[in-house]
Amino acid sequence: MPHISRRTALTLGTAAFAAPAFGLSPRPPAKIEQWSVFETALTGPKHGNPFRDIALSGIFECGSKLQEAAGFYDGDGVWRIRFMPDRPGNWRFRTTSNARELDGKTGTFAALPASPHNHGPVAVANTFHFAYADGAPYFPFGTTSYAWTHQSDVQCALTLKTLAAAPFNKLRFAVFPNGDTAGIPLYPFVGTPHAWDFTRFNPAFFRRLEYFVGRLRDLSIEADIILFHPYDGGKWGFDAMPPEVDERYLSYLIARLSAYRNVWWSLANEYDIIKAKTEADFDRLFQVVRAGDPYGHLRSIHNLHKIYDNNKPWVTHASLQNGSAVEDDARAMLYRDVWRKPVVFDEVKYEGNIAKRWGNLSGKEMVRRVWAGTIGGTYVGHGEAIEDNEHRMFLGEGGLLRGESPARLAFFKKIIEEGPLAIDPIDKWQDRHLGGVPGRYYLRYFGCETPREWPFVLPKDGVTAGQSFAVDVIDTWNMTVAGVPGTFTLRKADEYSFTADRAVPLPQRQYMALRIRRVS
Amino acid sequence: MPHISRRTALTLGTAAFAAPAFGLSPRPPAKIEQWSVFETALTGPKHGNPFRDIALSGIFECGSKLQEAAGFYDGDGVWRIRFMPDRPGNWRFRTTSNARELDGKTGTFAALPASPHNHGPVAVANTFHFAYADGAPYFPFGTTSYAWTHQSDVQCALTLKTLAAAPFNKLRFAVFPNGDTAGIPLYPFVGTPHAWDFTRFNPAFFRRLEYFVGRLRDLSIEADIILFHPYDGGKWGFDAMPPEVDERYLSYLIARLSAYRNVWWSLANEYDIIKAKTEADFDRLFQVVRAGDPYGHLRSIHNLHKIYDNNKPWVTHASLQNGSAVEDDARAMLYRDVWRKPVVFDEVKYEGNIAKRWGNLSGKEMVRRVWAGTIGGTYVGHGEAIEDNEHRMFLGEGGLLRGESPARLAFFKKIIEEGPLAIDPIDKWQDRHLGGVPGRYYLRYFGCETPREWPFVLPKDGVTAGQSFAVDVIDTWNMTVAGVPGTFTLRKADEYSFTADRAVPLPQRQYMALRIRRVS
Repeated sequence: MPHISRRTALTLGTAAFAAPAFGLSPRPPAKIEQWSVFETALTGPKHGNPFRDIALSGIFECGSKLQEAAGFYDGDGVWRIRFMPDRPGNWRFRTTSNARELDGKTGTFAALPASPHNHGPVAVANTFHFAYADGAPYFPFGTTSYAWTHQSDVQCALTLKTLAAAPFNKLRFAVFPNGDTAGIPLYPFVGTPHAWDFTRFNPAFFRRLEYFVGRLRDLSIEADIILFHPYDGGKWGFDAMPPEVDERYLSYLIARLSAYRNVWWSLANEYDIIKAKTEADFDRLFQVVRAGDPYGHLRSIHNLHKIYDNNKPWVTHASLQNGSAVEDDARAMLYRDVWRKPVVFDEVKYEGNIAKRWGNLSGKEMVRRVWAGTIGGTYVGHGEAIEDNEHRMFLGEGGLLRGESPARLAFFKKIIEEGPLAIDPIDKWQDRHLGGVPGRYYLRYFGCETPREWPFVLPKDGVTAGQSFAVDVIDTWNMTVAGVPGTFTLRKADEYSFTADRAVPLPQRQYMALRIRRVS
Repeated sequence: MPHISRRTALTLGTAAFAAPAFGLSPRPPAKIEQWSVFETALTGPKHGNPFRDIALSGIFECGSKLQEAAGFYDGDGVWRIRFMPDRPGNWRFRTTSNARELDGKTGTFAALPASPHNHGPVAVANTFHFAYADGAPYFPFGTTSYAWTHQSDVQCALTLKTLAAAPFNKLRFAVFPNGDTAGIPLYPFVGTPHAWDFTRFNPAFFRRLEYFVGRLRDLSIEADIILFHPYDGGKWGFDAMPPEVDERYLSYLIARLSAYRNVWWSLANEYDIIKAKTEADFDRLFQVVRAGDPYGHLRSIHNLHKIYDNNKPWVTHASLQNGSAVEDDARAMLYRDVWRKPVVFDEVKYEGNIAKRWGNLSGKEMVRRVWAGTIGGTYVGHGEAIEDNEHRMFLGEGGLLRGESPARLAFFKKIIEEGPLAIDPIDKWQDRHLGGVPGRYYLRYFGCETPREWPFVLPKDGVTAGQSFAVDVIDTWNMTVAGVPGTFTLRKADEYSFTADRAVPLPQRQYMALRIRRVS
């Protein structure tokens, strides 16, 4: 596989979905990158119902590493097994199947070291944060477009072009179509609405989905895939399938997609208003995902009113909806302690122009929430509910981003990327409004407050008298960074704090922040 | 047992501890109240180590109800079994023991219906709240005095006198002495500090403790008993006993105390800084408490920095330390959703005059936190760290309350008791700053804000156009209630809210609240 670079111009034609993303080659490629998708295609029986009746998996082996990956039926007598090698080296595999034609097939391939833009899948790191498999920190800058993959090819290409120029490195979207948005008539099952053959999948549907997952990967965007949602609106019934269908659907999706390194599993959006499912159902479905995914991709579940118990061991991180909680870093941080897991606010209301109260934040308020949640040690996602003339919005159908916040979030991202890429609240529960790494790096965020100066005070953790710090004044809205001349040298203030001999002057505008970095 | 009324004058002499609270009568009383302590005394072997070698329990039976209660050795060859009947009726019991003299003893007693002040033990009700066993709501107004039972008899009598005149109906205190406070030399084990015989309890220690639990019960005060704490200071080693000693200690304490209806079990204070115990140890100790207590008294565990996973099924409610979280109702309420259990803030910093930042809240700030947490649907406890000339404070040694907040909390209690006695956040996560019961009763709290008026706006939940509400303006600090003339009649304002045709005028002072009650 060639080196993948971030592309700024993208095109997309329907033809892309006619041929599977990885081709129908009878022999697998001899060499792929570590953390890329290895795929082998096998010819097997077409009679009966292969989706239901035939099982296939491969055991992959490299040195002492042994891993199983499920195969899947891709239609027309073709079977595939995909596999993501987690280390460079020579891999070999052998298939197992209840169909004689598919059983006992073997092969080999070489996994090469990852190229510079391939850091592997993301996992939880240091309790509250994330890192790629190669150890590089991953700081989520997320957004959402629930139904973008269900739009026309032209619209999908536009969305990808938008994303290529946007600051986001995580996109939430749903497998199933959304009753609130117009979409193309392509469905995961054979049949027609309310007359599905739930025992037969539609490979073309999944090929299109995985094509987009691959495109997002190539843009270094994590695909936070929403497996169930409550917005069916009675159109298709995908929110109320029988339990065994839910489980087969998950297994099939996982067999197809888990080898993509950028996959995250979001069990559901607003799970608590999916009427046909209970919390116990989601407990069970989490097990299906956990058992089926050989790579342990991140797993979460997103609430409306009722937050799932994120302390359950199969939840890797919290994926919250709560706008109020990120109006204040001291609110946001409260969720960290109760779960001791990364807290991702995937919905905090959206920048938008609609009457619904979840869709009319100003750009300034959107950006304020991202900053506030960040210094509280959490991760805050963007969303845009700005309707165009056809009542489409990026949140639903993708397309263009029109808001004022993305540019500021790109600026925010630049600031974050210059720092330690893991922000923790400093002296938590004491309303310091400081996040960072004690003794080394601090962000002080002022939000709507407009003080004339900030009395230079740092909590005692990690600091001693005599240390010096450099300070930058950041205008988070106007996107400027101005260094304060000289340094600030610490002396003990009281039992809890150190201070300097002067304050930091501020311009009495809203949305200011300070960056405070240790220099000696 | 006679009717128990709330006494306003109390005396206490050392003699009280010489005779056990319930006497050494060889025959049990023929009649007790439901939810009172039935006790039977038996004479058994004194040789060897009865604490360690002999097991005793009683099976109690009334109609179809069958319940086991452990007995305990009270020294001098005397054994006791205590039992709290949970229903009126004729009860009989039979003992089981590995000592022939104690085995197979039988008896009967009658449980009479509870008198008006006896509502039984408190349990969780409606997810976030509490109720007595008879269904009466219980709204915690808590305070803390860690080491009050370890003080002199004179000081203990003073503490009880203070409590009799104070608004508090829950008191947190520790079984073990506190290295930071002076105390009387009476310990739970035989021996001397660091040379304890951990196989032999000191009955006099426990008699004193249970005497106080009984006195609190007679004052309608729940005894939130802290079973372990980190303040041993190396003086006695009770924070670092072997696991089997911890478990025997708990079993003994539970056998002695669980028949007292006002008992709550607080596994530990600041459990996360008890160096000799891990979280897994507390998981285990919770099981000892749960298994040993036949009545299922409330169980919690109190944090410093690291909050325990209160979703674990053996935790009945959260007992938190976090002052920052109750500076704002929108912070406080966040904890409710994650645990779906009552949230009790047992430490939010204290009204006080000491240098430590946990002990110098103004009375106004103490009261503000109680109000803010309350409208967030949580329960906030008081504490007082006002040192007297001998460096004693109510928080540690009991005695007098000197602060400004108790009078305001008595006023707050009166307001609460005139209402539904269960406050939930209204339209949560929308920063309404309203708590109450939708459509029926609302409290709007303004804290430090001093608006000239409040635009009468209620969220749509539970209301319809045409309903009328009466409004009282409450000065929570100056303790006044002023009715606003006329009523406020609702009309729809938007998709989310109803409003009235006029605003509520406010006096532009801090610490104001509104009480809004439906009248038609």
